[in-house]
Order: sequence, then C-alpha cells, then structure tokens
Amino acid sequence: MKIAFIGLGNMGAPMARNLIKAGHALNLFDLNQTVLNELAALGGTISASPRDAAQGAELVLTMLPAAAHVRSVWLNEDGVLAGIGKGVPAVDCSTIDPQTARDVAAAAAKHGVAMADAPVSGGTGGAQAGTLTFMVGANPELFATLQPVLAQMGRNIVHCGDVGTGQIAKICNNLLLGISMVGVSEAMALGDALGIDTQVLAGIINSSTGRCWSSDTYNPWPGVIETAPASRGYTGGFGADLMLKDLGLATEAARQAHQPVILGAVAQQLYQSMSQRGDGGKDFSAIINSYRKPL
Amino acid sequence: MKIAFIGLGNMGAPMARNLIKAGHALNLFDLNQTVLNELAALGGTISASPRDAAQGAELVLTMLPAAAHVRSVWLNEDGVLAGIGKGVPAVDCSTIDPQTARDVAAAAAKHGVAMADAPVSGGTGGAQAGTLTFMVGANPELFATLQPVLAQMGRNIVHCGDVGTGQIAKICNNLLLGISMVGVSEAMALGDALGIDTQVLAGIINSSTGRCWSSDTYNPWPGVIETAPASRGYTGGFGADLMLKDLGLATEAARQAHQPVILGAVAQQLYQSMSQRGDGGKDFSAIINSYRKPL
Amino acid sequence: MKIAFIGLGNMGAPMARNLIKAGHALNLFDLNQTVLNELAALGGTISASPRDAAQGAELVLTMLPAAAHVRSVWLNEDGVLAGIGKGVPAVDCSTIDPQTARDVAAAAAKHGVAMADAPVSGGTGGAQAGTLTFMVGANPELFATLQPVLAQMGRNIVHCGDVGTGQIAKICNNLLLGISMVGVSEAMALGDALGIDTQVLAGIINSSTGRCWSSDTYNPWPGVIETAPASRGYTGGFGADLMLKDLGLATEAARQAHQPVILGAVAQQLYQSMSQRGDGGKDFSAIINSYRKPL
Amino acid sequence: MKIAFIGLGNMGAPMARNLIKAGHALNLFDLNQTVLNELAALGGTISASPRDAAQGAELVLTMLPAAAHVRSVWLNEDGVLAGIGKGVPAVDCSTIDPQTARDVAAAAAKHGVAMADAPVSGGTGGAQAGTLTFMVGANPELFATLQPVLAQMGRNIVHCGDVGTGQIAKICNNLLLGISMVGVSEAMALGDALGIDTQVLAGIINSSTGRCWSSDTYNPWPGVIETAPASRGYTGGFGADLMLKDLGLATEAARQAHQPVILGAVAQQLYQSMSQRGDGGKDFSAIINSYRKPL
Repeated sequence: MKIAFIGLGNMGAPMARNLIKAGHALNLFDLNQTVLNELAALGGTISASPRDAAQGAELVLTMLPAAAHVRSVWLNEDGVLAGIGKGVPAVDCSTIDPQTARDVAAAAAKHGVAMADAPVSGGTGGAQAGTLTFMVGANPELFATLQPVLAQMGRNIVHCGDVGTGQIAKICNNLLLGISMVGVSEAMALGDALGIDTQVLAGIINSSTGRCWSSDTYNPWPGVIETAPASRGYTGGFGADLMLKDLGLATEAARQAHQPVILGAVAQQLYQSMSQRGDGGKDFSAIINSYRKPL
Repeated sequence: MKIAFIGLGNMGAPMARNLIKAGHALNLFDLNQTVLNELAALGGTISASPRDAAQGAELVLTMLPAAAHVRSVWLNEDGVLAGIGKGVPAVDCSTIDPQTARDVAAAAAKHGVAMADAPVSGGTGGAQAGTLTFMVGANPELFATLQPVLAQMGRNIVHCGDVGTGQIAKICNNLLLGISMVGVSEAMALGDALGIDTQVLAGIINSSTGRCWSSDTYNPWPGVIETAPASRGYTGGFGADLMLKDLGLATEAARQAHQPVILGAVAQQLYQSMSQRGDGGKDFSAIINSYRKPL
Repeated sequence: MKIAFIGLGNMGAPMARNLIKAGHALNLFDLNQTVLNELAALGGTISASPRDAAQGAELVLTMLPAAAHVRSVWLNEDGVLAGIGKGVPAVDCSTIDPQTARDVAAAAAKHGVAMADAPVSGGTGGAQAGTLTFMVGANPELFATLQPVLAQMGRNIVHCGDVGTGQIAKICNNLLLGISMVGVSEAMALGDALGIDTQVLAGIINSSTGRCWSSDTYNPWPGVIETAPASRGYTGGFGADLMLKDLGLATEAARQAHQPVILGAVAQQLYQSMSQRGDGGKDFSAIINSYRKPL
Repeated sequence: MKIAFIGLGNMGAPMARNLIKAGHALNLFDLNQTVLNELAALGGTISASPRDAAQGAELVLTMLPAAAHVRSVWLNEDGVLAGIGKGVPAVDCSTIDPQTARDVAAAAAKHGVAMADAPVSGGTGGAQAGTLTFMVGANPELFATLQPVLAQMGRNIVHCGDVGTGQIAKICNNLLLGISMVGVSEAMALGDALGIDTQVLAGIINSSTGRCWSSDTYNPWPGVIETAPASRGYTGGFGADLMLKDLGLATEAARQAHQPVILGAVAQQLYQSMSQRGDGGKDFSAIINSYRKPL
C-alpha cells in the first residue's frame, strides 16, 4: 500500500519503520533531513512537501507535536489537502485538542476525504516495539479501513466513536492518570511520614479500594515496583512535561466545554511547578518528590 | 472464648452477632438498650460499664464512632483499662486518628496489656456477611492471637505493622480513594461534555493507565457498572459523610506529621460542599453530581 | 480628529458616544446595524468594513469581544491594516491575551503603524460616565499621543510599559481579584457559621491585614456594603462569566509562560462550577453562595 | 491593680513589661525561670503555679502557645480556676480554636468567673511597642472592664461579640490574609513572567480592584515596599509556620462547623510544603518563592 507518512519525530520515525517493515511503500515528509535519509535508506521515498507526499497515496497518516502543526500540515497551500485524492482514507495520530481534530476533519470532508483522529499511548518504547494503543475517532467504514494498518504499529486499536473522540478518550484518561499519580504520591508520602512501611502500604492499597494503575503498576515510591521508573531514578518513562501538555489539553477542552475540572486543574499546576523547578524531563511519577522532605 | 465487645452500632452489632454464632461468650456494652437486649437474646451478657465488660474477659474488642469515644471507653474511671486483666489481648476496631490509637495503646501497656488497632473496610454489608477487611496494627504475637478471632468476622486480615499502622493504612487508602473518585468523576463528566459515549470511555479507561477501583468497580456514572450505587440512585454504599470523616482524619494526621496533601485537602472540601448542600447521606460516588449540569 | 472606531457593543457604543460628544469625527464599524444607525444619528459616519473605517483616519481604535475578533478585524483582507495610513496611531481596547496583542502589534509595525493595547476596567457604567481606567501598553510617544483621547473616555490612563503590558496588568489584577473575592467569601461564610456577626467581622477585616477591595468596597455578604451588588441581589456589577473569561486568560497566559498559578486555577474552576449551575449572569461576588447552605 | 499574668514567651513577656510600667502589681507564672527573674527584677512577683498566681488577683490574663496549654493552665488541679476569686475578670490572649475558648469559659462560669478571649495581632514588635490589636470576645460588662487594661498593651481594642468571637475574628481574618498573600504572589510572579515591571504592576493593583494589605503594605516582591520583609530577605515579620498554625485552626474550625473553605485548604497545604522544604522560619510572604524559578 502506498502511504504518505508525515512527521518523523521520536514517535513517528519508529512507527514509519514498522510500516516499511510490513511491506508498505512510504512517501515521507519531515523538516529533519537526517531522519528522512535514514528512512529512505530503508526504502521510503522523500517528498518535497505534505502535498507532494499526499499525491498518489492510498492512505495519509500524520504524527505531529501540536495542533498548530496539524493545522498547517493539512490546511496550508502545500498541505495534505492540496494533494490528497478524493476518497483516500486519512488519519492524524498527534495528540491535540478535540476541536482542532474536528475542524481539520471538517475541512478534509469538503475535499471528499474522510479523516480520523487516532492518538496513541505507549511511548517511544511502544512505538518501536509496535505495541502502541490507538484511540480512534472515525466513522465505522473508515475505522474498518484503518484498523489493519494501525495494527501493524500497535496492539490495541480501540474505536471510540466519531472523529474527535480519539482525542477525547486520550485526554480524559490522562486527566485521570495525572490526578491518580498525585493521589498515590500523597498517600504514599503520608503513610511514610506517619510510620507505615511503604511496601506494606502499597500492598494494602493494591488489594483494596485505592487500587489503581499508578499504584500497582507504576508506583512512584522507589523500590515498590521494580520495573517502574521510580526504581531507576525516574528515567525512561512518560515525562512530566508530556503529562503537563496533556493536562493543559484537558483543562483547555474543559474550559471550551464549560465543564469544571477542579482536581485536574490543581494537578496541572503541580506539574507546572515541578517543571518550573527544572524537573520536567523526569518521569511524571517523580511528582512524589514535591511531597517529600528534600535530602 | 469470653470476649468483651463494646460498641454495638451499625457495624458493631452484626460483628458481635458473628462472634456469638461462632460460639464465643460475649460481655456486651453499649448505651443503646434495644440492641443490648437483642444481642442478649442471642446469648450475650449485658454489662454495666466497659470496666465490667472487661473484667474476666479473655479478649476485649471495641468498635466506636470516633476518637473521643475510644479515649473515654478505654481510659475513664469505669473504662476498659480499669477492669481488664494483665496480659489479656485487646483490640480497637474503630476508625480514628493514628495518634489516639498509639496513645491509648501506650496507656494499655502501662496496665500490662498489649493493644492493637484494627479498623475495617467493607461496610455494614461486609459486617453482616462476615467479609470485612481488617487492617491490623499489632506486634507479631498479638496479631497471631487476634487473627483467628478477626477471621470469624472478616475475610482479609492484614498485618500492617505495629500499633497505629492499621489506622495509617486505612486513612492512606481512603485518602487515595476519595481523590480517585473525584478524578473519575471529572474524567467521566468531561468526556460526556465533549461528546464521547460514557460507556465507551469507561471501557477505555479501565483497560488503560487511568484504570482504578473507582472506575472499574464503582464507576460514578449511572449504568456503567450495574452493581455500583450510581446505578441505583447512589444509595446503599459508602456514604459521602463517611468519606468526609476519613478525609478529615487524613488531613489532620497529615497536619500533625507536617506533611502536605494538596489534592486530599481539596477533595475533603468538595465532599464538605456536597454535605453542606444536603447530599452527605448519598453514596460518595454521587460527588459526580457536583460536576454535572443540574437537571 | 478623525477617528476610526470599530466594535460598538455594550462597552464600545458608550465610549464612541463620549468621543462624538468631545467633538471628534468618527468612522464607525460594527456588525450590528441598529447601533450604527444610532451613532450615525449623533454624527458618526458608517463604514463598510474595518478597512474603509481606517482609510483616512487619524487614529484607529477597536473594542472587541475576544482575541479571534481582534485578529480578523486587524489582519483580514478587509481589515484595519489594509486601510490604515503609515504612522497613524492605533489602539485596541479589547481584553485579550497578551500574546495576541503583541502579534497584532508586530503585524501593524510591518505597515509602519505603532499600536497600543489598552484594556479597560470600570464596566458599562464607567463607559457611559467616561470614568473608565485604561491600562495602556505602548511606547512612550504613542502613549503621549493616545493619552488625551483616552482621557475623554476615562479617568485613569495608566502607562504599563510596552505593547502587551496593558493586557498583562489587567489579567494579573483580575486574577488577584478573583482569588480575593473567593477568599473573602470563605472568610465571611466561615465567620457566620462559627457565630460572629458578619457586619462586625467585615469591620475587623477592613481595619486589619485581611483588608481588600473585595471586602471593604464590594463585600459579598448582603447588607455589609449598601452600594455593593450583594445588597441588591447580585445584579448590576461585574458578571461571573466575565470573571470566568479573565481567569481563563490568566491561566492560559500562565500556561504559555510556564508559570504556575494554583489558587488562580482553583478560582477559575469554582467560577466554572457557578456558571454551570446557571449563575454565570449574576455578579461575581455571588460566588459566596457556593459556600452557604441552600435555603 | 493586682494582675495574674501567665505565659511569658516572645509575646507575653513584653506585654507583661508594659503592664508593670503602667503601674500594675503582677503575679507571674511561666516554666522559664530566666524570664521570671527578669520580670521580677522589674517589680513582679513570682508564683509557684497558675493557681497561686490567680489567688488574690483582681484580673487574670494568660498568653499561651496552643489550646492544650490553655486547657491545662486553666483547668488542672493547680490551674487558674482552682485559685481565682469569684467575680474576678479573666481573659485568655492566646490564639486557639474558638471551641476551646468557649469550653474553658464555660468551666470558668461554673466558678462564677466571666472569661473573655482576646487574641492579638501585631507580632512581637507590636507587643514591645504596646501597639497590638486585641480582638475581644466578651460580654459587654467584661469588655468594659478589660478595655482599659488591654489598652495599656495595645492600640486597637475591638469588641467582636460574646466569648469565642475574638478567636473567630482572628482566624477568619488570617484565613483571608493567607489566601491574599498567595494570590498576590501568583499575580506578581505571573506579571513578571509575562514581562511587566513588578513595581508598575504593584502600583496598578494598589489603585485598582486587586488592592489589598498583602499588596500595598506587605508586598512579597523584593523592593516593591521598602519596609516589607520581602525587602530584607523575608526576615523579621510574621513567620510562615505561624501562618500555617492559623490556617490549621481555620480549616479545623471549618471542619467542625461543616463549612467548606476550598482556597483556605489549598493555601494551608502550600504553606505546609514551604515548611517541609525548610522555609517555615521565613516571613510568610516568602511563599512567593514557591512561584519563582529557583536561582
């Protein structure tokens, strides 16, 4: 299948590599010449613009840092919509606000193109291993078309509803994740301050009503979960600045929907403080250090 | 075994009933004459005071509403310590602050009595069914002594460490539970406001990093979990005023330990607002109504 | 002086009226034909577009609801910058984010136009009476040029620094105002719940370290300040939805500047909850009702 | 007048000194022998216990660190109530919770003693200079009796209502003060991050609706107010740990009164974090450093 793949950053490049491995012919576009050359060496074709990449493609996929990039890559004069063929399936895998996802899809519809949003979770590790989760907002036909291709880059391909609902699912989940991680941090730090063994406390929580992924799989207390970033100096997981971005998307979407999100807003500010102190590059579970006496 | 059982409220009465059923001889004390008569009819003996109940008992167990009652029942002139024999095992199952638990245990130690704290979770349903969880703070010998008796009233008997750690485990878990429930409420209400199907959203969260007991077992959105209080008008679960009490214990213990708990403090205030509006008697998952447009 | 005045809403129309009264010739533009006719009857000239209004004007002034309108009125094909003469002083009095103010000013500079931002406070009452406060971001020469004209619509014309600082001053002040009003509401409601006379409490606060405009001039407790909206059913002041807008601008500007604003974010959410309950049209001091038992 | 003065710490000692200077005969009690000797050298009489101090006194005044001390000094076997004469006016100047103030006053009433609470503001500087503010909860006759004596130690003697209302006034004011100071810190730090001159911003706030004591008299930004602690390294003012204590009293009183105080609870936690980081001894306006990038 001839696929236009635009956006070859830390996530996009390994995803594109998996599609090449699966036998697809890729039209590649990015501003970074080095990564373009690397992927061309594996068999991809370098395009001069998003429009050029889209021309003749049987599917267009983009993976970009933020909403502004999505708008320009799709809507500009030399953007995807200027080159894509009528009826060609299109999907944006960036994590952006639901409104932009819907706006760009509406513009695509005017060109006769059905477009999906399909943000991912799983990080760069999942992108490399091809084990990402895709949260897909698309009409049923488009979902059926995209599903086998996405499955070559991920393990869970979840249909969330119409276009935009992929983004909604992701920001709602990550809103809760950010709150949960702060909550686990408060509970663990309080338990430690009051004098219970943290390993024992985690065990009780994990078999009780406080049970959650942030405690039983990704516990922020060092040593509780051997495979968690907390047990390796808060490195190599989901960076605090990425969580901060997602909480920003959630509170901004809430503002537009006239919907209060009180704990979410506080969690966002706590991650902002962590980032301001210079710790935005650490794993997001390092928020627990905001609750512990400095050494 | 001759057991003094003091405090026969909504939790204590069914617990005492289970001990009588198991064949123990109970010395009963409470201020409520009706419940005393009911239990006496099952074979228990009514005592004139906590001291009288404790005299001659081989084990003393109390189940009281708050720290002030625990202090007076154990420490007053006609309290348990005035009657209990040296070396008799003692346990308080009330949910109170860890400091009071330790203070009363220290007073008991002066009488030659080893005392445990063993707060429960599982509610009145678990008390009746004998399926409570006991979080036990006790020295290892005392835990070994108490374990078989507690197992006649509960299913999980967890050793948390020395006296006081039972309370610590409970308030840390419930601190996290209160935060999680608010977090799930914000995520579900936001998803709904943005236009995703709430059943689909819950499914995604429950298989992703937002997964938690408050979402996958006790989801606050009506109809998502058929067995949850949300699906029966927020009745018959864990009342918001009980959550409010536990969050009060957590933030007060945090204050004494000089430990910040930011989301916990906000969650406490949100439950306080809910209670002030007259909804403290509803299940605590009804906090989601603070995030939904009034009908 | 020939002045282009664009944006004739609740604020803009009375401001324009004051300029006409002061003897200026106005080129008027708005989408609302009724208000255009009214002002034309007083002597203004109706223009076909922002560009037409700007052509030949010696000063251009805009007063618009939000950043999107400012961008389109200034930057569109038939916008102000397409018609304005080189060297003509320009000022936008809308309340918007500082970044948009700077972006539009940068675009104006490319046309050889120095532009100021000058958001106001004082409400529709101040607009009618000509007693507004203007917070002006402009270079010193431009400020000197604008000052006498703005003084025909307002009483305090404050120079805040370069373009953008007018918006910064306004959102920082209103961030603090929103927090203070919630703080006064909590203090007054707590005092009442604990049993002190609210009039006495306000008197003590107002002569002590809690003293603030939200307490001594605009107290949210009914009857404490006879002239405050609280004493007339929370009508006729600064609407809660306007405070919500300004808190949204403040937290969004903070997000872009990587700056935490914790209480500000919570205050925003509390106003969002108030608005969701249907009370966004009341004066913002009615936030105190979120802290009082419903009648 | 023969006055029993109990509690001679940083506040009590200079207050007692002012009463001696004013010509009163003082019965002194404290656990600190050094300060007792100092004040005896000025003419006071050292007592063996609170009871002894109270015996024969025409007025009893206490100034103690916390509620537990107030209870024991007044209610113990060798406490004030064991020695005080019937009808002797009594006043406690400690800052404690309103409920303890009312409880001790009720115990005093059983001895035929009318008791007032009269917490102060003004710090050790005000205690030395005799310029304290006394917030007095007392019946009108007792207030009339106490007023001239308190006026020898302070400048503002405010009648707040019945016993307990002095404490209520103080904690409500300081609740608002704590919130305001955080609010000013957020506004100043945001303004700085966005690029406005902080001196200009403070000037605008102080003549606008954000105006408050925390900004116009005690601004947390260094250099804005020359006489404020911020301009001398956050030394010599009202310590953050004292603010933390008062916010703890406020949120605990709110809990007992079933009254939410959302921003107050967050402010308390922010001061707790500051204290945990080791900055509890700095002036409370140093909370602004929680909002500024570390150097």
